[in-house]
Amino acid sequence: MSDNTFGTLLRVTTWGESHGPAIGCVVDGCPPRIPLSENDIQPWMDKRRPGQSRYTTQRQEADKVRILSGVFGGHTTGTPISLLVENTNQRSRDYSDVARYYRPGHADYSYDRKYGFRDYRGGGRSSARETAMRVAAGAVARAVLRHLVGPQLRIRGALVQVGQLGVDRANWDWAACDQNAFNCPDPAMVPRWADLVEGARKGGSSIGAVFEVVAENVPPGLGAPVYGRLDSDLAAGFMGINGVKGVEIGEGFNAANLRGEENADSLHSTSDPGVARFGANHAGGILGGISTGQPVVVRAAIKPTSSILTPVPSIDRAGHEHAMHTKGRHDPCIGIRAVPVGEAMMACILADHLLRHHAQCGWPLPPVTVPPPA
Amino acid sequence: MSDNTFGTLLRVTTWGESHGPAIGCVVDGCPPRIPLSENDIQPWMDKRRPGQSRYTTQRQEADKVRILSGVFGGHTTGTPISLLVENTNQRSRDYSDVARYYRPGHADYSYDRKYGFRDYRGGGRSSARETAMRVAAGAVARAVLRHLVGPQLRIRGALVQVGQLGVDRANWDWAACDQNAFNCPDPAMVPRWADLVEGARKGGSSIGAVFEVVAENVPPGLGAPVYGRLDSDLAAGFMGINGVKGVEIGEGFNAANLRGEENADSLHSTSDPGVARFGANHAGGILGGISTGQPVVVRAAIKPTSSILTPVPSIDRAGHEHAMHTKGRHDPCIGIRAVPVGEAMMACILADHLLRHHAQCGWPLPPVTVPPPA
Amino acid sequence: MSDNTFGTLLRVTTWGESHGPAIGCVVDGCPPRIPLSENDIQPWMDKRRPGQSRYTTQRQEADKVRILSGVFGGHTTGTPISLLVENTNQRSRDYSDVARYYRPGHADYSYDRKYGFRDYRGGGRSSARETAMRVAAGAVARAVLRHLVGPQLRIRGALVQVGQLGVDRANWDWAACDQNAFNCPDPAMVPRWADLVEGARKGGSSIGAVFEVVAENVPPGLGAPVYGRLDSDLAAGFMGINGVKGVEIGEGFNAANLRGEENADSLHSTSDPGVARFGANHAGGILGGISTGQPVVVRAAIKPTSSILTPVPSIDRAGHEHAMHTKGRHDPCIGIRAVPVGEAMMACILADHLLRHHAQCGWPLPPVTVPPPA
Amino acid sequence: MSDNTFGTLLRVTTWGESHGPAIGCVVDGCPPRIPLSENDIQPWMDKRRPGQSRYTTQRQEADKVRILSGVFGGHTTGTPISLLVENTNQRSRDYSDVARYYRPGHADYSYDRKYGFRDYRGGGRSSARETAMRVAAGAVARAVLRHLVGPQLRIRGALVQVGQLGVDRANWDWAACDQNAFNCPDPAMVPRWADLVEGARKGGSSIGAVFEVVAENVPPGLGAPVYGRLDSDLAAGFMGINGVKGVEIGEGFNAANLRGEENADSLHSTSDPGVARFGANHAGGILGGISTGQPVVVRAAIKPTSSILTPVPSIDRAGHEHAMHTKGRHDPCIGIRAVPVGEAMMACILADHLLRHHAQCGWPLPPVTVPPPA
Repeated sequence: MSDNTFGTLLRVTTWGESHGPAIGCVVDGCPPRIPLSENDIQPWMDKRRPGQSRYTTQRQEADKVRILSGVFGGHTTGTPISLLVENTNQRSRDYSDVARYYRPGHADYSYDRKYGFRDYRGGGRSSARETAMRVAAGAVARAVLRHLVGPQLRIRGALVQVGQLGVDRANWDWAACDQNAFNCPDPAMVPRWADLVEGARKGGSSIGAVFEVVAENVPPGLGAPVYGRLDSDLAAGFMGINGVKGVEIGEGFNAANLRGEENADSLHSTSDPGVARFGANHAGGILGGISTGQPVVVRAAIKPTSSILTPVPSIDRAGHEHAMHTKGRHDPCIGIRAVPVGEAMMACILADHLLRHHAQCGWPLPPVTVPPPA
Repeated sequence: MSDNTFGTLLRVTTWGESHGPAIGCVVDGCPPRIPLSENDIQPWMDKRRPGQSRYTTQRQEADKVRILSGVFGGHTTGTPISLLVENTNQRSRDYSDVARYYRPGHADYSYDRKYGFRDYRGGGRSSARETAMRVAAGAVARAVLRHLVGPQLRIRGALVQVGQLGVDRANWDWAACDQNAFNCPDPAMVPRWADLVEGARKGGSSIGAVFEVVAENVPPGLGAPVYGRLDSDLAAGFMGINGVKGVEIGEGFNAANLRGEENADSLHSTSDPGVARFGANHAGGILGGISTGQPVVVRAAIKPTSSILTPVPSIDRAGHEHAMHTKGRHDPCIGIRAVPVGEAMMACILADHLLRHHAQCGWPLPPVTVPPPA
Repeated sequence: MSDNTFGTLLRVTTWGESHGPAIGCVVDGCPPRIPLSENDIQPWMDKRRPGQSRYTTQRQEADKVRILSGVFGGHTTGTPISLLVENTNQRSRDYSDVARYYRPGHADYSYDRKYGFRDYRGGGRSSARETAMRVAAGAVARAVLRHLVGPQLRIRGALVQVGQLGVDRANWDWAACDQNAFNCPDPAMVPRWADLVEGARKGGSSIGAVFEVVAENVPPGLGAPVYGRLDSDLAAGFMGINGVKGVEIGEGFNAANLRGEENADSLHSTSDPGVARFGANHAGGILGGISTGQPVVVRAAIKPTSSILTPVPSIDRAGHEHAMHTKGRHDPCIGIRAVPVGEAMMACILADHLLRHHAQCGWPLPPVTVPPPA
Repeated sequence: MSDNTFGTLLRVTTWGESHGPAIGCVVDGCPPRIPLSENDIQPWMDKRRPGQSRYTTQRQEADKVRILSGVFGGHTTGTPISLLVENTNQRSRDYSDVARYYRPGHADYSYDRKYGFRDYRGGGRSSARETAMRVAAGAVARAVLRHLVGPQLRIRGALVQVGQLGVDRANWDWAACDQNAFNCPDPAMVPRWADLVEGARKGGSSIGAVFEVVAENVPPGLGAPVYGRLDSDLAAGFMGINGVKGVEIGEGFNAANLRGEENADSLHSTSDPGVARFGANHAGGILGGISTGQPVVVRAAIKPTSSILTPVPSIDRAGHEHAMHTKGRHDPCIGIRAVPVGEAMMACILADHLLRHHAQCGWPLPPVTVPPPA
């Protein structure tokens, strides 16, 4: 994983700043002969696009994606797929404060300590705007998965907690997610979150959240036991989404509270010898770093947006102190728009591991009889 | 990150199975002229070594490490450092059950679905024995950090929760960690954990845990804003430790519960212009994927050991059902021995990012005046 | 080196087909605070640009490069630099032959055997048009080298052989290279090459060539002894230029003809202890894979263009035979336009190795006294 | 390609110095369920082993290889294969000269400029001894190719020129290579080379050479058009063999002398639609960086050994001058023992590209009809 690339065989390299002329990505390693057009990508861009409800930033971006290479006659050619989105709404605004002072909770200070120099407009490379290209790449990954595995491999995300209000899993309804502004699977929770987020927005405050992404019908055998693990790559990918401070798989942090008997996932036979049915999914679909065929379940916690109206002490590069508060457009709960980004990361990582698995283990070799124990 | 290698510039490749003749690693990219001998590595091996208390597995391994290359005249040469540990206690035991049936909660089933074949003796490559080499590599990384940053960069770990019993942070005493069998920083908690773990051991049960690793005086500027993030690499590294199901940094999952004002880390001036003092460390030392100079704080949740006496239904490769229970040696709480592994991962990842930072940003270039905002 | 990326720390990823809307590249890993603008890149694009003499293809492309990211206030920011060139002269032509039949000597057949599908317009990804982006990346690498090493590090290329006519090295004049259409350093050879190439062009034939790239004042110590070698990376980079079939360094293939005494480069003291003056440069500036400080000298042989008027038997995907001959625009001697591409590869590879060297060996560690021989 | 690793999916990492306790390598990414034992590797080690004729160094090494991991029940498990060879003949000798002075033509000076420190015993990491592990890895790669492609994929090497004496290709007999000390395919040349090399040895001189490696029945479609090229990887791998100063493929440098008509490889139909028979193989089996199915033909030029009895001026680290000459054991013509190393590199690179091809293009997707030309 280099600084601006992720993936080993399906490699995604993104570029672009929030306020430059455009942002883009290059998806390399995509198998050839997979149907792909801009229509496969745009709906996912639209889902992440800001300005769609009162609960997200009012920045308006068309986020119209263009395919510049790697597709011919409606199919991927196996060569790099270049995707580009023009920035159209770099609102002319007053940057004098952010140009000089470090916004607390943002990457401004750490950025300056690293590079000694930064594009302060809209956070530059640290802007959540960059995640638009992860979503675009995720759409390509979904096309890969659909054609190499099939439509039964389904990736869906939901917001499961806002502030201290978590959904009631007994009410879980995937279909509900598309019917509210929060990607909330529990219809009963929607008005409560609406009040909470609207209150934070009006008060110039912000609020944390937890989201969950579930991938069903993932082929078993993806990942590796030590470092090339599926869970490690998911942890890296989700931790890298703006504002995420924690990632868990399956039972996650709750596993610490359990005893071995409580956490056990029993295996049972099915009509297909060698394919197990599991009695539970505490493991979140991954054992020893390798997928089991159960749903892969990842959750991530997102901190409250650091851009708030309440002044917080800060300094400039010369050490002068100044209390910062944010006047511009912002998301009071960045967790809401993180859901499609998490789905995209899941898609990219699964597609990458699918190619990796195929490279090493996809050969039609005869089975080997395990030697008898000594 | 390939299947058995981690790190970008300080690259660690491990090899070896639990019951083969030896395990080892190759550490590549280490700068030259750094003092290193086996005496710098062995103490960390000893700390992780099994069989040192009644609370861990009774497997006895000397874990004597040998340096086979890359060191001359007591200093690293810049060439690959090969480390090797012989396996001496592959106890001859009855493998007939594990050879045939999948142990629930272990990688047996997912392994077979991936490779179609496995070395069943002791879990093969999925054995926690592999982590001995992460600890060895971590000792090399500590030598790198000590010489390139200085002794003030200190990495320490502690167990902070066993089952549902968490330490009282008001009692935190790093020195206490070395004085009990649990790496517990809260002396008052030690007897309660002792009872809990001993009870689990006697009852053939097991118990989950949470451990924390803290790195102090990490140079600011390590990491990158998008994918080459310090937090992503830590998440991947900690999630890859055997049994880990969740990773969090700083405030972690609790950040979801907070408002922006509650989670803010203010910046204050110091005698060194451009160096900030922070009013709090909710961020866990990382903002926008880049270190800030504050302590880097990572926690990981470990599931209860899957090897328990209670039978759990399982199947074999042909789909025959069989209830499995574990008779062999095992750790009732694998979290205990995970602490030095977590410290080692922290050391390796920080050293790697230090080299990466130096490569791109360590040049004595003149400062650039940020252009005035338009 | 993945399929469309080269470099380890200064990473260049190119994308785009000859007849798509645009071609581009992403340069990642560039140090921050280095002055860079489009004016630093455009002159090198212009040098490679086709249609500038009767001896190259008549395709007209403005090859106007745009920087879309990674530069702010006239300096690099350390984030990925996205460069884009629009394709403006995809002449509408008759592709019916090339769409169906494999052009002998081109990648058509091997492409189809790999991908099962190809963008046949202008060779798609195999088109020499892709090398425009190597030249653009090379200009960024030159900026890096100029600022991290200094202007004394100079990279220049020349054509040294066309067909069987090699330059007379006694006449070598670098300044002459810019004064003829061939990058020829021997003014006396220019009219002879002009006749030769013009004859090939008029006859619908083509002709091979050898070019040489020399980098002066390369810092010693770049490279590594085994695989991360400077010579290996140069060999890969030059062999990857379209049409190249051989690469040599320093004495090259002639070294096979020599005895040890004839090939020896003696070392002599200078006013700077530890810095050697060499008595000769048979080694081409590289010993054991590592630069010595002498000029790095690389030569590459380029085959004659495969596009010729003489019909050559070929087949289509169904095995139908058909004699192919080329009607379109083509370079009778592709070696001419390869010179700036070779220079660019040299620049990229040296800049990459400079960063790699700095990462591992750029630390101010105290010298180590080599232990006395046993 | 990191400093001590080569390959993308079949990754070979070597370690060890000439005079340390052992040398070794780790082969990662090998598919599981491939038969492998030490008996598959040892014969290739024996072929490279020194001291087998009067024409090579008299250092005696058993070069007995041990498999330490990654193989169970006689088959690969898919986990890293660790191979180790103990150094048994580190003859106690007088290093006082080489410890202090730079041997001309060796890596001593460039090494010191890079690392500031070196293991001077036997050249440390730059010793040709390291190539033993390339040969071991090559044997694993051969096992992979044999099982995934079949025994018809055959890799063979020969020495084709010693000094100025090249073989007569009309006499080429592969079987002859095993019947002389030179890997010479032209029996008539053997006595002439014997005189030449023996003369050089007796006179304390040395002599250059050219060797050739041919891989027959390589599947078409291996490689990629731009940077992940088969020819680039072969060029890097062969240029990285100790002493190599030039690499060429197919017609190589001679292609510069030819016209397009002379260099053309016509395509003809076969009984298998879509599979071509070629009229010639000027391309050396690779077009546009991708294999065509024709024999892959690589040649490399090796310089004369730099260790000679004739004194050559040199300096020490402090700039003191001293004429160096070599007293120890050495190969008068290192080209002889380079042949099995070249074969091994060919095997490793082909196996790696086979996995890479399979990852991206090995899926059973329906064919796509190329869109009609506009």
